[in-house]
Order: sequence, then C-alpha cells, then structure tokens
Amino acid sequence: MRAEIIAIGAELLGARRPETNSLYLAGELADLGIPLRGKSVLPDDERALAAGMAAACRRAEVVLCTGGLGPTEDDRTVAAAARALGCPLVRDPRAERRLRERYRRRGRGLRAADLRQALRLQPARWLPNRLGSALGQWCPTPHGCLILLPGPPRELQPMFAAQVRPRLRRLAPPAALATRVLSIAGLSESEVDRRAAPLYRRVANPATTILAVSTPQVELHFRARATSRRRAQALADALARRVERRLGRAVFSREQQSLVAVVGARLAARRQTVAVAESCTGGLLAAALTQEAGSSRFFRGGVVCYSDDLKVALAGVAPASLSAHGAVSAVVARQLARGARARLGTDWGIGVTGIAGPGGARPGKPVGTVFIAVCGPGLSTRARRWRFFGDRGLVRRSAVQTALNLLRLWLD
Amino acid sequence: MRAEIIAIGAELLGARRPETNSLYLAGELADLGIPLRGKSVLPDDERALAAGMAAACRRAEVVLCTGGLGPTEDDRTVAAAARALGCPLVRDPRAERRLRERYRRRGRGLRAADLRQALRLQPARWLPNRLGSALGQWCPTPHGCLILLPGPPRELQPMFAAQVRPRLRRLAPPAALATRVLSIAGLSESEVDRRAAPLYRRVANPATTILAVSTPQVELHFRARATSRRRAQALADALARRVERRLGRAVFSREQQSLVAVVGARLAARRQTVAVAESCTGGLLAAALTQEAGSSRFFRGGVVCYSDDLKVALAGVAPASLSAHGAVSAVVARQLARGARARLGTDWGIGVTGIAGPGGARPGKPVGTVFIAVCGPGLSTRARRWRFFGDRGLVRRSAVQTALNLLRLWLD
Repeated sequence: MRAEIIAIGAELLGARRPETNSLYLAGELADLGIPLRGKSVLPDDERALAAGMAAACRRAEVVLCTGGLGPTEDDRTVAAAARALGCPLVRDPRAERRLRERYRRRGRGLRAADLRQALRLQPARWLPNRLGSALGQWCPTPHGCLILLPGPPRELQPMFAAQVRPRLRRLAPPAALATRVLSIAGLSESEVDRRAAPLYRRVANPATTILAVSTPQVELHFRARATSRRRAQALADALARRVERRLGRAVFSREQQSLVAVVGARLAARRQTVAVAESCTGGLLAAALTQEAGSSRFFRGGVVCYSDDLKVALAGVAPASLSAHGAVSAVVARQLARGARARLGTDWGIGVTGIAGPGGARPGKPVGTVFIAVCGPGLSTRARRWRFFGDRGLVRRSAVQTALNLLRLWLD
Repeated sequence: MRAEIIAIGAELLGARRPETNSLYLAGELADLGIPLRGKSVLPDDERALAAGMAAACRRAEVVLCTGGLGPTEDDRTVAAAARALGCPLVRDPRAERRLRERYRRRGRGLRAADLRQALRLQPARWLPNRLGSALGQWCPTPHGCLILLPGPPRELQPMFAAQVRPRLRRLAPPAALATRVLSIAGLSESEVDRRAAPLYRRVANPATTILAVSTPQVELHFRARATSRRRAQALADALARRVERRLGRAVFSREQQSLVAVVGARLAARRQTVAVAESCTGGLLAAALTQEAGSSRFFRGGVVCYSDDLKVALAGVAPASLSAHGAVSAVVARQLARGARARLGTDWGIGVTGIAGPGGARPGKPVGTVFIAVCGPGLSTRARRWRFFGDRGLVRRSAVQTALNLLRLWLD
C-alpha cells in the first residue's frame, strides 16, 4: 500500500508560501508504515485537478488531497474529484441543515454558493470538521481511497488524527517503520558513498539515503520496515552499526545532534572551556559555538582579528612571524590558537587564518587556503593546512565545521 | 507557455524537510511571465521519475527538475530523463576531463560511479556549475524543454540566473517585465504595509508584493509589465519612488544590496572603520560585517566576551558597572562599544549585550531583551534597549540586523 499527497491552491504555487501540510501528513504516514510515493501541488483548476487525482489514484492506494473545500468560486476540489472518479455528486440534506445552522449561529446569511459545501461524492462518507465549515470526505476508489481534507492545518490535523488515522490503520498492513541517522563530518558525500555503499547497496530494507546537509557534513538515513516498531528499529540500527564501524570516527552522532552540540557536550562533561582567535571566518566560529543554549558552560569568548596589527594586539602573534610567514600560515594559526587559550584563560584554543575569497590569493596560497590550529591541555599545538572550495560563504562555513570537527576528534 | 517543477529526492518526502527550491523558481517564473501549472516531489526511483517527467513534458512546455544529479547510487535524475524522453545518454569526453581535473585538484580519486556525472542526454546542452561537480542540462523536448538543475540552492540559483533565465526569456512571450525592489530595515512587515498599502493597494500594474526577508528586514517588490523593458522599468520605479517618500529613511537600498553592503560602502567612502564587542550575539555581528568580500577596508576586528570577566579583560568594562547594573544593561553596552573602539583603534564601536534565550531571563529583563550601543567620531555613545521575539536564533539575528541598521542611520 502506498500513498500520494495532492495539495491544492494557486497560492501554494507562488514564491512565498511553502506547502507544509504534506510534512505533517508524511510523518503520520511514516508512523502508519505507509510509504509516500510522491506529492504534488496543483492550482484550483478543475480539469488539471481531476487529471492529477485520477493519475494518483492509479498509482497509489491512498490519495490525500488538502485544500479547496471552501465555499468560494475557486474551491474546485469536490467537483474535480467527482470528475476524476466518474461518480455523481449528491446534495446531503443533513449536511445542508448543519450548514444553515452554523451560518445562522454566526449571524451570517447563507448564499447559494455556500451550499456547495453540502455536496458529497456519492460513494463517500463525510469527515466531520469541528473547527470550520468545510467537511472532509473519505471516498472508496477501485484500488483504495481518495481522502479530501481542508487546507487550514488547525482543521486538517485534528480531523486526520481523529478520523483518518484510525481508518488507515485498519487498512494498512501491520508494518512499522523506524529510522536511524548517522551524522558524519570530515568526509565528502562521495567518499562516504565509496566506503559505505558496499554495505547497503544491495539491501532494500533498510532503505539507505545519503544526504550532504552542509559541507563538510553528510548524513546517512537508514529507514527500515518490519512487523513492529521495535523490530524495524533493530533492523535500522544493525545496518547503521555496520556502516559506522566502516566509517569510524567520522561519525559524530546517531541522534541527529549538531556538531556544535556534540563538541559542547564533551567539553561540558570534562568541565573544560574553549576560546577562539579567528581571521578569515570573522566571528563565524564563535557564532557557531554560541548558537545553542547553554554555550556559556564551555565557551568563554573569542577575538576576531581581521587586521594584522590586531592579530598582534589581541592574540599575541609575533610581528616577526607575520613578516616571515605571512598572516595565512601554520605558524600564525598556531600563535592564534595559543594566544586565544592564554589570553582568554581557557583549556582549549582554536586559531583560524585563511583566504575566504574571492580576492586575496597569493603565490602558492590560492583562495580557499585555510590554516586551522588547535591547542589544549597536554597537547602540543597542531596546525594543518586545508583547501576548501566554493564561494566565500562556503569556504567560511567549511572552515568553521572543520575547526569544530578537529576539536571533537581531539576531545575523543 | 506553461511550466512545471519536479523536485527529486526521497529526503523531501519525509516529515522534516520542506521543499524550497520551487519557491525560488516560482518567483523567477513569475518574473518571466511563465505561469506555473503545478509542482511535485518524487523519490529517486528511476521508473516513477521517468513517468513523472514524461507526463509533465506532455502538460507543460517548460519542465524544471531539481536534485538527483550527484555521483551516488541514488542519483537517478539523468537516467530517468533519458527514459522519459526516449533518448540515449552519451559520455562527454570534455565533461569527463573537467571532472577528472576537479577531483585531481582536490586530491581525490575518481571512481567509475563519479563518471556518471559526465553522461549527457544526447540532444541536451550542459549547464555549467561553478560551485559543484554536478552539471545541469537543458534538453529540447517535442513541446519545449526539460531542464535539469542540481538540488543545493547555492548551486541552483546562480545557474538559473546566469544560464536558464536568459534562455527562457528568449522563449517567453515578448511582454517586457521590470522589477524594482525596496529593502527596508527597522519596520515590521505590517507597519510597512500600513504605511505604504494606500499607495499600491488599488494599482494592478505594477503588482506589489511585500516580503519579510528576515527580521527586521522587509522587502517591497514592484513588478511592472509594459511593451518595452524601459517603459516597464519606468512604471515600477515611479511607484517605488512614491512609496519610498512615504517610508523615508527606513529604505536602505533600491538595488537589493544587503544591509552590510550598504553600511560597508558608507564606511569605506568615509575611510572609516568599525570594531565590535559582543556578548549574546556571540560573534554573529562580526561574522555579518565580514560576510562580503572587501570587508577589511572597514572592519578591523572584534571581541566576543561571553563571560563577564572577559567583558572586563577584553573590552574594559568596569567591574563595578557589572555588579551595579548587571551584564545586560545600557551601561555595559555603552562600555562595550567604547571599549571596542578604543582598544581596536577604530572610528566606530558597537556593543551588544542581551538575553538570547531560551534560558537566562531575569526580573524585568525577559528573554529577547538586548541593549545595543554605538559610538563614533563626534558622537556621544548612545545605547538603546530592544525587545526581540522568537527563538534564540531569531533573537540573535534580529540583534545583528538592528545593530547594523543603527550604524547605517548614524552614518547618514
């Protein structure tokens, strides 16, 4: 059994409104173990809608439509469904009475157009709506069902929960779904794929998806199905564990924590603190370290020394090192890390210096060259040269993620 | 001529990730005067994808597909397109060389699978991608074209702008469109609407859209259509000028510059520099000031003093002020601004201290309370108390935008 979602409304085809009902419905379907085959957004055009619904009903057993059930001219969902299924519409006297009653209570007159809301697909059952005037419908189709729900989330969600979910549960095979996500830093998407694909390529259950969330962070999603949620979770976890052994320390979370959260938790557990001295990242590393609540437990502060004389004044870089090696060098990165640690009185120090671009390349140091140094308790200061690619923003974000990942590895 | 969008990727069918590329593309299509007939999200399943593409190509002249162009197993877009159009795939030696070159530069080996990225639909042209390895393709179809673009927005958007938009403009009907955008800071969306709507509400051409880009930044888009581009531009500009007179100094750009770019250009024109001392924004203000190339002309550096003792050590805040007024106070914000200016040797100084949340509220100082101070040449240091709303991230971004806007207003 598979599902499709059709969201209806011209306003959802503009540049501003993301369609979000399908996210809620996707979560509900996943809980029910019904895979979602696809989703679409269509305008309130009766012919196009009818064609979309008919095609969806051929491909999927469960077709969920949202929106277009109101009383205005451009609400065409019910008429389109009748055309798609080739079934007549009937005017339901009970629904009509309920509608008249509702309008009367609100002191509003009932127009002829409003009565369209009392039209039911002949084979369908009503899905009552306690929070609005538009009723939903559950209509059997040759292979399954077509479900019409109103667009406003505060009407749709309680209707789904109270009326659609229990019906689908009765229809759906007793399968349960579970997911495990591995978050990976320091390896590219294709490198992760190269190493891990032999383990998952020929496995259909769990299904594996690889995702480049943000350079240099990659996620592997393992989605398993079984007769119970616990068994599905065990399946997903078993494959995730095998892949994790292959990827080693590049995996930093099994619980979709951010890299910063992982680093922060390790520092806090050791009651240690970190400070940063950054040049090309210009404050972005400090901003990343403070992005989640509670960062004051492990982050004390940082200096952004964009100009060379501030590298000397704020982080204690030696002027001789600047003139001998240039600001973008391993030597200066090391002095930045040590300066941050000493002057800000922390256990760990990170120094970052590089060329974010687009200008600033020097002979032997192309745009994207970044030196990152880390020093800490009982650790000689280590600096490494990196080469990041992409525009200024991506080079800066890559440098931040890499610096956090280095600190994580040294905290292990 | 009509368009459809197909977003490709199993991860877009889950409960967490809204599909957003289609919002960008919808806006672009609207600018081109090409109506969007519908959009869909499909998983990386070759058969389902091919069927979806073939149906879309029958219904719409322009079919835009996003995602699934990478080197991994689950990238099936090109193979599906070949199946949908019934055309062969050819291995392009030039693309292959480019790919080898790219991998070599990054010191990575090239696997056989990576070479799939050099497969082109026989009738198609490549759409180069400067920011990633996945190339796009523009393929003629019996009624129009099928366009394949990569999923990451930062690759897709410049590719669309540079390569797809001009080609579509040549295909689209010869009505000329022009747009003028006013960027506004310091007024809420509803405040902008209240003041400006009387000027544009009853005007159909130009069409006006109000957009809350990011708190506290609002944009007004005026989109005019006429028989020539020049006439359309004149129409859009005329209405924009009237609205701008109504909104006054809240308008900071007519050319879609960022607030940072405007502030930076004004500082650079005066040959002046700025430094920052930040607490709750944790480096985000410095990061904003350095986000665009050339920031070293006006930005020297900053200090992130998250802990109280570092406010004293790095920015010269008086310990007595901290104990008398607390770290979140106008007095401390002023001392941070002055400290940054004096210690980092700049013309302007900005100090930010506040409660980003979710914890940390104090009596009389709820979460979202932020004090921002600015000092500069011949200006007594001014501090103001703000109350921002939303989660931690939004409070921090609001504080950064507000600080930049204050500096802009004082630079006027």
